[in-house]
Amino acid sequence: MEQAKPLPSYLIQRFHGWRATTYAGNKAWYRRLAESGQHPRAMVISCCDSRVHVTSIFGADEGEFFIHRNIANLVPPYSPDGEAHGTSAAVEYAVTALKVAHIVVLGHSNCGGVKGCHDMCSGIAPELELRSSFVGRWMDILRPGYQRVEHVPAEARLAALEKEAVLVSLENLMTFPFVKEAVEAEKMTLHGLWTNVGEGGLEQFVPGSGFVAV
Amino acid sequence: MEQAKPLPSYLIQRFHGWRATTYAGNKAWYRRLAESGQHPRAMVISCCDSRVHVTSIFGADEGEFFIHRNIANLVPPYSPDGEAHGTSAAVEYAVTALKVAHIVVLGHSNCGGVKGCHDMCSGIAPELELRSSFVGRWMDILRPGYQRVEHVPAEARLAALEKEAVLVSLENLMTFPFVKEAVEAEKMTLHGLWTNVGEGGLEQFVPGSGFVAV
Amino acid sequence: MEQAKPLPSYLIQRFHGWRATTYAGNKAWYRRLAESGQHPRAMVISCCDSRVHVTSIFGADEGEFFIHRNIANLVPPYSPDGEAHGTSAAVEYAVTALKVAHIVVLGHSNCGGVKGCHDMCSGIAPELELRSSFVGRWMDILRPGYQRVEHVPAEARLAALEKEAVLVSLENLMTFPFVKEAVEAEKMTLHGLWTNVGEGGLEQFVPGSGFVAV
Amino acid sequence: MEQAKPLPSYLIQRFHGWRATTYAGNKAWYRRLAESGQHPRAMVISCCDSRVHVTSIFGADEGEFFIHRNIANLVPPYSPDGEAHGTSAAVEYAVTALKVAHIVVLGHSNCGGVKGCHDMCSGIAPELELRSSFVGRWMDILRPGYQRVEHVPAEARLAALEKEAVLVSLENLMTFPFVKEAVEAEKMTLHGLWTNVGEGGLEQFVPGSGFVAV
Repeated sequence: MEQAKPLPSYLIQRFHGWRATTYAGNKAWYRRLAESGQHPRAMVISCCDSRVHVTSIFGADEGEFFIHRNIANLVPPYSPDGEAHGTSAAVEYAVTALKVAHIVVLGHSNCGGVKGCHDMCSGIAPELELRSSFVGRWMDILRPGYQRVEHVPAEARLAALEKEAVLVSLENLMTFPFVKEAVEAEKMTLHGLWTNVGEGGLEQFVPGSGFVAV
Repeated sequence: MEQAKPLPSYLIQRFHGWRATTYAGNKAWYRRLAESGQHPRAMVISCCDSRVHVTSIFGADEGEFFIHRNIANLVPPYSPDGEAHGTSAAVEYAVTALKVAHIVVLGHSNCGGVKGCHDMCSGIAPELELRSSFVGRWMDILRPGYQRVEHVPAEARLAALEKEAVLVSLENLMTFPFVKEAVEAEKMTLHGLWTNVGEGGLEQFVPGSGFVAV
Repeated sequence: MEQAKPLPSYLIQRFHGWRATTYAGNKAWYRRLAESGQHPRAMVISCCDSRVHVTSIFGADEGEFFIHRNIANLVPPYSPDGEAHGTSAAVEYAVTALKVAHIVVLGHSNCGGVKGCHDMCSGIAPELELRSSFVGRWMDILRPGYQRVEHVPAEARLAALEKEAVLVSLENLMTFPFVKEAVEAEKMTLHGLWTNVGEGGLEQFVPGSGFVAV
Repeated sequence: MEQAKPLPSYLIQRFHGWRATTYAGNKAWYRRLAESGQHPRAMVISCCDSRVHVTSIFGADEGEFFIHRNIANLVPPYSPDGEAHGTSAAVEYAVTALKVAHIVVLGHSNCGGVKGCHDMCSGIAPELELRSSFVGRWMDILRPGYQRVEHVPAEARLAALEKEAVLVSLENLMTFPFVKEAVEAEKMTLHGLWTNVGEGGLEQFVPGSGFVAV
């Protein structure tokens, strides 16, 4: 792996700052986490977007949340075909090995992946329809959601589709036998959230009422 | 989606605390991030593990890093087969849409996914070899790394395999044409890191020298 | 006191969140509590266990309960021997200075202290019988309760002993002259509760009927 | 135990409210806590005072803190004399069985126990000097602290003594061999806090600087 480069110095400096402060003040906790293993209460599935830090929003420290982040916080349907499925592997590990009590799917405003899905489905982004487009093929997961918002007025359609990304993921989660079983046995609960990056708002999905501010 | 439940109240309380402090103090920045879009400097690929918070280690604020988190911080090889590949989609979006300057792969100690790969490859975890095991099929990505550490003494083998997870991912990244092109044009650099959760240590991969403390 | 360390930063962040929300919204009440003193209606004696929050179960706000928490919610017998007795001091202050109207003893399922007493009394935890074992000597208070459950079938014995911890404490409370006097003058009532952590159940002791669901 | 009475109905009503809301929304987590046991990160030693809710200040949910509450948040010196010592038992269990990463001693303003110690030591509360006074004998633990604040101006003396209650407890904690060992091995840290009930303030002890606002 000859192409690897040394870390930019500003990151090295920040690491040493963290080590001298946060790590030094929490050494005992980090050691215990290393020795006794993690016992996270919840799995959070959120977007890769740099503006969405679930640990910040919820004041969470190391050890609290098992966090999977992908484009547009999507969960594909259950498909045990012997291929590599990173999201499905993360869900399987959280539910069967860590036995988390909650799975929280956190969507957000201004989502580039969701906008790509919107443009692809409305015919103005043909490059995303190519077989070779990883973003396009990943956003195919959200196509059922697009059909449900197609007739929403243009100015509200993107936010509606971002919320559909949360609902489609929750629906797909229920197609995994181990998720369904844990939910039905009341050993795990599912939660759908959407955050407005600019306004610092948070809405949760309530069956029958849709997304409502917390 | 009838199964969704309201958010646990302690998280709602923490959210309101964040909104009244961190958000209130950074409203202008969050609004600008929402209006002007994200311009992250780096993509970070790290593990879902609750003990690894790259934003904490690098003191990163909203807007700095585009973060993908999956089991064992793995990148599969380039495979544009028309199927959904979440990790490849995230890499494609980071490199071609966001044009990040760095991709950092961050491995870590005590990795449950890597341990699963180790046990599967050494024949003591047959359940991970099942076609239906998502974790097993995902950890297949690391099999080439296992072959390189098979003869490392037992007490050092897991850490060696955790570092191989970083190297295999860096190698696989170079199989993506858009990554290779950006690296060769010196528009983007690749970096391999491994952090020791309990000791708060950070090592970076240096070609010719292996992993060395920063 | 050179060993003291700064508070972990996640707790500082959470405190500021509380101050900006809960405190800000209740400032007048907190100021009045500070200026006029506390007038709690009840004293609650519960366990240190992290899974038992009496303020949560009873929706209690600042100012409502005077709360003493020790291992296994035990009250020792009256013993005015000039030595330091923390539990007796708390009871004395609640009854004679605060003149609470109720004392509630709250036991719970899965109690580690009660299990220790069980193991010690049944001869399988010799380390708890050492003179130097603080947990062992504290759990001696529950020995009379162990004798009453010794013949309960094994699968029900721990819960029975947890409930005995409540009864032994109520009995010992009545050995304090100021408690007996207040109870007999109908100025104060005693209550025995047991909560099932996993099932969210609550049982109260009713003389003649034993513990019954509320 | 013929004196026990049914729970006041307002508490039964609140319990059912909690069960229908908080418990219902967190059933999976409570069940997991019951089945897998508690893994609290910290032990908190605070006062019985009804105005001090550490779980509120730190937004803590069930499972996070192992909490001991006694009059004036005091820890007596190590004294393995075969007698029952509730505080020492709680510390022993937290450190040796639960292996908490932090012990936080939380003092507070307007502390009735500390005021009692002040009045006793300054000669105006002879009733607290009686052998039979449980509060007096408990507050003897703070006598070394009184000597250090005796010459502080009257208007600042009570707050100074409340902070001494934190420091005396931290000093006494270090007399327990298992505490000293865990602190010196950097497996556990000690923290001293003081909160101003009316103002919602929080100060932490910093060696060399005294108590400073967080």
